[in-house]
Amino acid sequence: MLASLPVPHPFDSRAGRAVLRRAEVADTDAIIGLLADDPISAARGDQAVEADRPAYAAALGEILDDPSNDLVVIELDGTVVGTLQLTLIPGMARRGAKRLLIEAVRVRSDLRSSGIGSASMRWVSEDAAPALGAALIQLTSDAARTDAHRFYERLGYTGSHIGFKYAVPR
Amino acid sequence: MLASLPVPHPFDSRAGRAVLRRAEVADTDAIIGLLADDPISAARGDQAVEADRPAYAAALGEILDDPSNDLVVIELDGTVVGTLQLTLIPGMARRGAKRLLIEAVRVRSDLRSSGIGSASMRWVSEDAAPALGAALIQLTSDAARTDAHRFYERLGYTGSHIGFKYAVPR
Repeated sequence: MLASLPVPHPFDSRAGRAVLRRAEVADTDAIIGLLADDPISAARGDQAVEADRPAYAAALGEILDDPSNDLVVIELDGTVVGTLQLTLIPGMARRGAKRLLIEAVRVRSDLRSSGIGSASMRWVSEDAAPALGAALIQLTSDAARTDAHRFYERLGYTGSHIGFKYAVPR
Repeated sequence: MLASLPVPHPFDSRAGRAVLRRAEVADTDAIIGLLADDPISAARGDQAVEADRPAYAAALGEILDDPSNDLVVIELDGTVVGTLQLTLIPGMARRGAKRLLIEAVRVRSDLRSSGIGSASMRWVSEDAAPALGAALIQLTSDAARTDAHRFYERLGYTGSHIGFKYAVPR
């Protein structure tokens, strides 16, 4: 976990009172369900089958044990409706700037356009990044997610880079 | 540093015998010089001015102290001619897969097309990623670096994503 992450962070949305908080082991099934709720993730193998549960639970433990990583959940009326993972990365470029990588941005499909996602992303740029000493925030988004690209651009992100991926052969 | 990173790794190139090894504090000035040697990095403020040296030295110390990060230098005939930074990131997606992020891929401008860069990247995918247990390697490349994009595609990377950046206001 990122020790200085400013959580919990309550906020209001059109869907009701929400809170950003650190994920807990008890959230494992809710997070697995959010992954399977996303067509692109599901196509990559995240299908919420019981046999994969130990791998997900181990991964959540690793994230929470890692001092450079945190998994944040968005809770609405006591239900986990979204996630985002933050990784704080030291670096030499840009005069030794720290960067904050965002992965696993997920909001339950029926709650998109509710303001929950944009409030969560504004918390990252306005609260979390300054608290962590990050000068740059970065993320990649699948080229097929054109709605997501507009969402990030509205929040002030610049799609200046190409994101390359390589699946390591087993 | 990444404890299980398989370094040092000697290899042959058209420019001579080279070695991939972990960066040391004594490499600070050579790494600063490589950043300033790159026009895009120089335009972002990496201009090798003496006043910035403490920030770079602190950043190198943070990378080497971080158990999820490592900075690798490429040495040719006793001279540092390239760098790459590796960050190992636990995650929930893709059934709890670990990903390896590559940042700061730099090869001295007169040594591009010497095979040094491609040998270094093959070491990442064939040796480093398996040793670290990473199932996915990812990096972003500025949209202006079209030569770099062909380089990554030849190595088997897929430019499937858009990389978004956000500079945190001071």
